[in-house]
Amino acid sequence: VVLHFADRLVAACRAKGNSLCVGLDPRWAMLPQEVRRRHAGQGLEGLAAACEEFCLRVLELVAPLVPAVKVQMACFEAGGPAGLAAMQHVLRAARQQGLITILDGKKNDIASTAQSYAEAVFGGTLLEGARWPVWEADALTVNPYLGADALEPFITQARSCGGGVFLLVRTSNPGSRQFQDLCCGGRPLYLHVAEAAAGWARQHLGRCGLGDVGAVVGVTQAAELAVVRQQFPELWLLLPGYGAQGGGAAAAAAGFRPDGLGALVNSSRGIIAGFAPEETQWEECIRAATRQTLAELLQQTPMRRLAAAS
Amino acid sequence: VVLHFADRLVAACRAKGNSLCVGLDPRWAMLPQEVRRRHAGQGLEGLAAACEEFCLRVLELVAPLVPAVKVQMACFEAGGPAGLAAMQHVLRAARQQGLITILDGKKNDIASTAQSYAEAVFGGTLLEGARWPVWEADALTVNPYLGADALEPFITQARSCGGGVFLLVRTSNPGSRQFQDLCCGGRPLYLHVAEAAAGWARQHLGRCGLGDVGAVVGVTQAAELAVVRQQFPELWLLLPGYGAQGGGAAAAAAGFRPDGLGALVNSSRGIIAGFAPEETQWEECIRAATRQTLAELLQQTPMRRLAAAS
Repeated sequence: VVLHFADRLVAACRAKGNSLCVGLDPRWAMLPQEVRRRHAGQGLEGLAAACEEFCLRVLELVAPLVPAVKVQMACFEAGGPAGLAAMQHVLRAARQQGLITILDGKKNDIASTAQSYAEAVFGGTLLEGARWPVWEADALTVNPYLGADALEPFITQARSCGGGVFLLVRTSNPGSRQFQDLCCGGRPLYLHVAEAAAGWARQHLGRCGLGDVGAVVGVTQAAELAVVRQQFPELWLLLPGYGAQGGGAAAAAAGFRPDGLGALVNSSRGIIAGFAPEETQWEECIRAATRQTLAELLQQTPMRRLAAAS
Repeated sequence: VVLHFADRLVAACRAKGNSLCVGLDPRWAMLPQEVRRRHAGQGLEGLAAACEEFCLRVLELVAPLVPAVKVQMACFEAGGPAGLAAMQHVLRAARQQGLITILDGKKNDIASTAQSYAEAVFGGTLLEGARWPVWEADALTVNPYLGADALEPFITQARSCGGGVFLLVRTSNPGSRQFQDLCCGGRPLYLHVAEAAAGWARQHLGRCGLGDVGAVVGVTQAAELAVVRQQFPELWLLLPGYGAQGGGAAAAAAGFRPDGLGALVNSSRGIIAGFAPEETQWEECIRAATRQTLAELLQQTPMRRLAAAS
């Protein structure tokens, strides 16, 4: 029996009493000097090893506190094949610690190629009749521009493994309005995309009433976030942009359903880069930033209902 | 002095007398049995080695005939870190044979992350004050959904290296119309994207009058291709979908400027997968398919002007 992604995510949130997602976006310049020192002068292999060491330590710090992590593929791709091997190790360690893993790859391509990406993320590459695991994440971010036939391989493959897909709907960057807000047939493009996501979600709802296709809506986009939440109650929303990008708890509140479900709030730099490189107590800084972010969210959003239930 | 991408591409096309791009989308099931046999039973490492061996052989066959290759990242990502190391070797070999290399990664993310992807593709990852090469392609396909601020890091980084960016405008898949054709302010979304691409292209035209930001328009989308070509003469157009996806030479003709420049016609499966796996003369099949495709294009499109000039 394959458990439904939405139910797995709800269970993880209830178990931790919150729906904070920690973003793993390791970059050389922000890593603690202590970590960098051990891997300096070794080029991309050193970058890969430093990112892996740092992220494994972050996982140990945050796994007792939060339900999920989002792994930024670009930061590992910066290290080439060695960096992507480090990403495999980080994803595996997160899974072993019971975290829900979201691979932030913003993938997109025509159907036959989307199938390759999807197999690599979810069930594994099919080779001589057997599946070979590649990234093994629980969920993937996907760019919707190509349309339904190019998105369905991601959804079908995720669904077959109890995985999920988060479609980019309204992204957290300042320029997201350029195309995403263009008004077509009386409503902005991003609502057309959200409608499509909700259609797929309704095809296959979990017991919790949420689907395994969700939407990425920047917490920096407060008004649009409220609209998506109100119109599409069946969507899990992944909310990037908390903290370093300017989104706050008051804005995040609009992403939740009244029952406290449906919003996974992601903070990356605000948690893993909130200290100077020379800080020796960086692990304590990460733990404190996580606790501080949780306190803000539990105080100012319906997320507190998860804590009450746990 | 950094040569302009558009001029480099024109020079490569004139040198070969055509603007055909061979797509390298290797998949286990389509590889010649002879190649598979040497790498069977070795999981993802075997897949990676087989893809590399096959692509290196294809490069030797097509490098004397065509100016460019397009490397489909998903096919290499299917092999995990080993697959991506194989992709590095294929890109390097293509460059060494004088081919223009297009990495088909359809990348997109917010600016700080786009910067990481762009450095990996073009100038190399910046680490302790030095650049470490990662993929080293001449051009990259980029998905426009996030908007200008998220696209500019790709363009700036490409430009600094004499590289190019192809923005997805109207993709070759049947469902591309779902979002790309939505009418906003009197014209479809894909023309808004093409207009943005042309704006960047005009900022930095090569001597040939074409820019280093181009557009992907499926040769399967004949009417839309003609519109983009007519409205935006400064865009290099990358035309996927030739052959296996159903696009033909008559449709491709609409992608060219009258001077025979501006359209790079990509054929992947039609050239590298046009034979049964048990075929022992597969190299001759690839050479013949390349020649046949060239004959069609030179006969039916303004590409013939490149041949006349060379």
